[in-house]
Formats: sequence, C-alpha cells, structure tokens
Amino acid sequence: MMRMVVGVQIIADLYGIDPEMISKTDRVYGIIEDAVRAGMLTKISSDYYQFQPRGVSGIVLLAESHLAFHTWPEHGLVTLDIYTCGDPKGADLSFEYIIEKMRPTNVEFKKITRGNLITEEVRVTPPENMILQ
Amino acid sequence: MMRMVVGVQIIADLYGIDPEMISKTDRVYGIIEDAVRAGMLTKISSDYYQFQPRGVSGIVLLAESHLAFHTWPEHGLVTLDIYTCGDPKGADLSFEYIIEKMRPTNVEFKKITRGNLITEEVRVTPPENMILQ
Repeated sequence: MMRMVVGVQIIADLYGIDPEMISKTDRVYGIIEDAVRAGMLTKISSDYYQFQPRGVSGIVLLAESHLAFHTWPEHGLVTLDIYTCGDPKGADLSFEYIIEKMRPTNVEFKKITRGNLITEEVRVTPPENMILQ
Repeated sequence: MMRMVVGVQIIADLYGIDPEMISKTDRVYGIIEDAVRAGMLTKISSDYYQFQPRGVSGIVLLAESHLAFHTWPEHGLVTLDIYTCGDPKGADLSFEYIIEKMRPTNVEFKKITRGNLITEEVRVTPPENMILQ
C-alpha cells in the first residue's frame, strides 16, 4: 500500500450565520463562485439546488478537486468542504473569502490531507482569531 | 452557538486499485451511479471530468447532500467523500458498493458527523474486515 499526500481538504462547519444570507441560491451563488476565484481555483462546472422553502446545496467540480456546501438556514449553519490537489493556499483563500462574506459567529474546521488520511489538524475558534497560514 | 448533528460523512482513501478500473470516465461512471442507487440516495445531478491521459473526478449532488471522488490511476488511489443528511445507512451502503466494485487492497476512512464536527471515528483496515454497521 503506497500512501502519499495528493491533496488537502478543509472540512468546516460555520455557525451563527444570518439565515437570510443562506436561504436562497441567488445570494449564496455569488459568494461561492467568487470564493473559487479568490482561491485561484479552476472551475470545471458547478451546480446549485434550492430546497423549499429555504436552504441551498451546491457543488463545484474543480480541476484541482472540489468545493461542496450545504446550508441549514433554520440553524444558521453551513457545512463546507474545500479540497484541492493544487496549491493548498488556494483552499485557504477560498475558505477565508467565504467566512468573510457569510460572517459566521463561530467556525469549527479540520484540515486533512488525502492519500494519507490520518494526518490532520483540528481547530475550533471564532473566525476573528482564525489564521490559516 | 448551536451545535447539532445534521449529517454523516464518510471520508475515505482507497488504495491498491487496478489503474485500468479508474482511468476512464466510462468505467467509473457506472460504479458511482450504481453506488448512489445502492445507498438509496436521491440524485439531483452528477458531473464527471476526464483528465488526460487518465484520471477521473466526479461529483453527485444529492437531495441528502453529496458524493465526490477523484482518481489517481498512477497511484492506484481513489479519494471518496459520501455525505448524507438522510439515513446514515445510505452512506454505508454506497461506500460498501464502491469497495466491492473497485476492489482496493486497503481502505482508510473516517466517519464524521457534521454540525458538531469534533465527533469522529477512524478506521484503517483491509476491506474484507470492514464492517460498517
């Protein structure tokens, strides 16, 4: 069994977001697409789904892997995965962009490597204290 | 900050897969789409991307969240995420189906809950010893 790092994945739960911000696709869409650009990631395709009466899911297929999110407006919650096999800084920049725009009161996240899954880092922190680099 | 479980995510690295099995979209596509059905998950949409000369990425947007995978034929590696906010058994069944079809020699996986990210279970095991339930 060959184990080697092929990519980095940020797995994050964002809490305390204004429900209005994450209820409808039209508002979330712009944040996510801009986050992909902020991370200098290469979009292949993206798809979004509007739940009724509110809530959004979306996935972005990247040349570098993927970004996926799901919103629970009733809990002020967004769960987010950003996975890149390119420069890990790209995932950090996308993540920071989403936090800046969605303004969660709290963020819990792990950063894991893929291809050797055991290594990881876990942080629970309010976003203002979160420094990724 | 309200923390509550909204879903379960399997994060898995599958090693030792025959490179031919995971080089081209046409072969991987059937396994993934059938895995979604095996888990009784509800597909909203799916998209696959063929890398040159080989390697495939794919994402399936589910009513229950998402499934995403990326293949590295040169390493015999598939990284896989299956995330469901429905019955957790659906993720297990999809995962087991993919393992059965791709026949990795080794599997490393975590099962985490979303909405309270800290709880998790990690297993490193050859697939024949892997019992999810």
